[in-house]
Amino acid sequence: MNGLDSAIRDADTAAYAAYGSSLDANVRYLTRFRTTDPVVYVQKPGERGMIVVPQMEHERAVRESTAAVATRADAGYLDYIKAGEPRWRATAHMIADLAGGPVLVPANFPLALARELESFHPVVLDERGAVEAMRAVKAPEEIERIRSVQRATEAAMEHGMALIRSSVPKGGVLYRDGAPLTSEAVRAGMHAYLLAHGYRGVDTIVSCGPDTALPHSPGAGPLRENEPIVIDIYPQDELTGYHADMTRTVVKGEPSPAIREMYEAVRDAKTHAVSMLRAGAVGADLYRATVEFFRDRGYESNTQGFTHSLGHGVGLEVHEEPSLGPQGGELCAGNVVTIEPGLYYPGTGGVRLEDMGAVTETGFDRFTQYGEELTL
Amino acid sequence: MNGLDSAIRDADTAAYAAYGSSLDANVRYLTRFRTTDPVVYVQKPGERGMIVVPQMEHERAVRESTAAVATRADAGYLDYIKAGEPRWRATAHMIADLAGGPVLVPANFPLALARELESFHPVVLDERGAVEAMRAVKAPEEIERIRSVQRATEAAMEHGMALIRSSVPKGGVLYRDGAPLTSEAVRAGMHAYLLAHGYRGVDTIVSCGPDTALPHSPGAGPLRENEPIVIDIYPQDELTGYHADMTRTVVKGEPSPAIREMYEAVRDAKTHAVSMLRAGAVGADLYRATVEFFRDRGYESNTQGFTHSLGHGVGLEVHEEPSLGPQGGELCAGNVVTIEPGLYYPGTGGVRLEDMGAVTETGFDRFTQYGEELTL
Repeated sequence: MNGLDSAIRDADTAAYAAYGSSLDANVRYLTRFRTTDPVVYVQKPGERGMIVVPQMEHERAVRESTAAVATRADAGYLDYIKAGEPRWRATAHMIADLAGGPVLVPANFPLALARELESFHPVVLDERGAVEAMRAVKAPEEIERIRSVQRATEAAMEHGMALIRSSVPKGGVLYRDGAPLTSEAVRAGMHAYLLAHGYRGVDTIVSCGPDTALPHSPGAGPLRENEPIVIDIYPQDELTGYHADMTRTVVKGEPSPAIREMYEAVRDAKTHAVSMLRAGAVGADLYRATVEFFRDRGYESNTQGFTHSLGHGVGLEVHEEPSLGPQGGELCAGNVVTIEPGLYYPGTGGVRLEDMGAVTETGFDRFTQYGEELTL
Repeated sequence: MNGLDSAIRDADTAAYAAYGSSLDANVRYLTRFRTTDPVVYVQKPGERGMIVVPQMEHERAVRESTAAVATRADAGYLDYIKAGEPRWRATAHMIADLAGGPVLVPANFPLALARELESFHPVVLDERGAVEAMRAVKAPEEIERIRSVQRATEAAMEHGMALIRSSVPKGGVLYRDGAPLTSEAVRAGMHAYLLAHGYRGVDTIVSCGPDTALPHSPGAGPLRENEPIVIDIYPQDELTGYHADMTRTVVKGEPSPAIREMYEAVRDAKTHAVSMLRAGAVGADLYRATVEFFRDRGYESNTQGFTHSLGHGVGLEVHEEPSLGPQGGELCAGNVVTIEPGLYYPGTGGVRLEDMGAVTETGFDRFTQYGEELTL
């Protein structure tokens, strides 16, 4: 935890404190503890960080967490509660005792807790995002974890594609086993595959036709022949919390000339962006280069066209540092990022392709191996 | 949204503002919008609340959200970004414009955003938890949503129980189809059932033997004959976000006398607590009555015994207001709560039973219909 230690020292603080459940990726990263209810994490320079948990979680936390573990009773919280302090006050009081001086906190530190904590010690915002920065540079074991999530994700994608491939068009609608093949059925098939292998599929996109023009439309109802189908899937490893993220666009039948042309532009934009990826490249430059690449192909980007960023970091969150959008900074080796150009036109539809891999000193270690044929 | 309007006025503020993804239950409640990335919500008294979303989410938000929708461009955010303001600053600037005066914010409002917002307008903490209080009293349609999640949860529970019931003990271990029946297999079977019906099972507990003495131990490995098996399941409806929550403890074979006695105490403690439930009852009183009930049966509660609270509200979060723990306040009609007494002794094991239902003027509308036989 050297990055955090130096942030604590540089900010002239005595300790770093965070508050959250394992849905908070910083807390999960620092504690490796799975919890629905929020815990307190406190780290002092040169010492192992500590989590404070309810009595009932003590033994499990000792087993599972990489942090030192104290109970609320050990840390004085229950005494403050018994003395009549409200919950936020008692939590702040306990953090103040553990920190023993000014406290560095993350951007998402709860305001209610900060206001109470300020009555004991100065509370300093971690302006540079020390933990986010640590999370953005993956250790080799994290890269292997994410690579294995990506492998499962591709198997799930193939599971969904097989349903579409084996469907039969009738009156414009795709059928399987005598019933229309729906967005919901493809999603459920992929999720069931993931679940059986220890991964959780959440809010997977299986959109078709006009819906594909909305990049985050989840999709619903029967899938159709000759229209783009966008599958965007970003499962989480239930055990480790790491994600993968990939998108493919396919057509069962014959795409319109407009969709075919968009598809080629998107595929070439992805190749172009990947060719520029390496440590030292700047996220905003890659984004702008992609906007220009599309412009050269005749696709202007405003409220239509290429309406989102080029990509993002992936780890304990699906979207994390670094950004490959208009504000994106310099990339470094160990970043795990997506490259996901897309084009969206209401009435015509949308096309997106998304690969993921690790930035290296010399290029891009692409995890994604899945093919990219437009027609099934 | 009258409860929030009066909180805004009582705090002498011009508007309420929140920031979060739909993992933030307050944001989900106020917007009914599903989003992985955080959105801004602003509400002024007498007006419909508004969410601010990226351009790419605009059409989906208009379709899905109960709030009015503006894009970041509409709300001025992109202009502030273009003018060089950092992200938190630009977000605060936009909120300040929309609010036009002092801003009421929830306890979990990000400190980084609050500090920037304070340079425009006073930022007032919602000390009384107006949105949490609104969420705690369910409207009739919310009660029906949660009741239907509970029905699916019981079907999933029965799915898991059927696996255990049909297992065959060999050398102390439960077998099915020639292989040991594991915690993981029972969990996966229940999750697959839930998934196929539109629900998401997360971190379901299937613990056995010594593990059951840790209330939140997820459980792992082969299940055993003659030992307690605790199944605690709290799925979420993928579409609406609402949860249910239930726990059963069973033994395949013959429980030890100690477990049998604990089971009877826990079952009777649940009946006793349910008999006291009604609008006007106080959570802390119910908790203390349960501690005393166990004491009368010879079970003292400290670091062993009854180590957690008696229950909690359930809704868009698995654990929400009201509490039936040592700090729990007065209950009111429309609260949806669990009653979950448990006893835990290292070496002996643990027993927990958990039902859920709605508090009414005269008692408890129990959603849970599942049986409570100890032995399978």
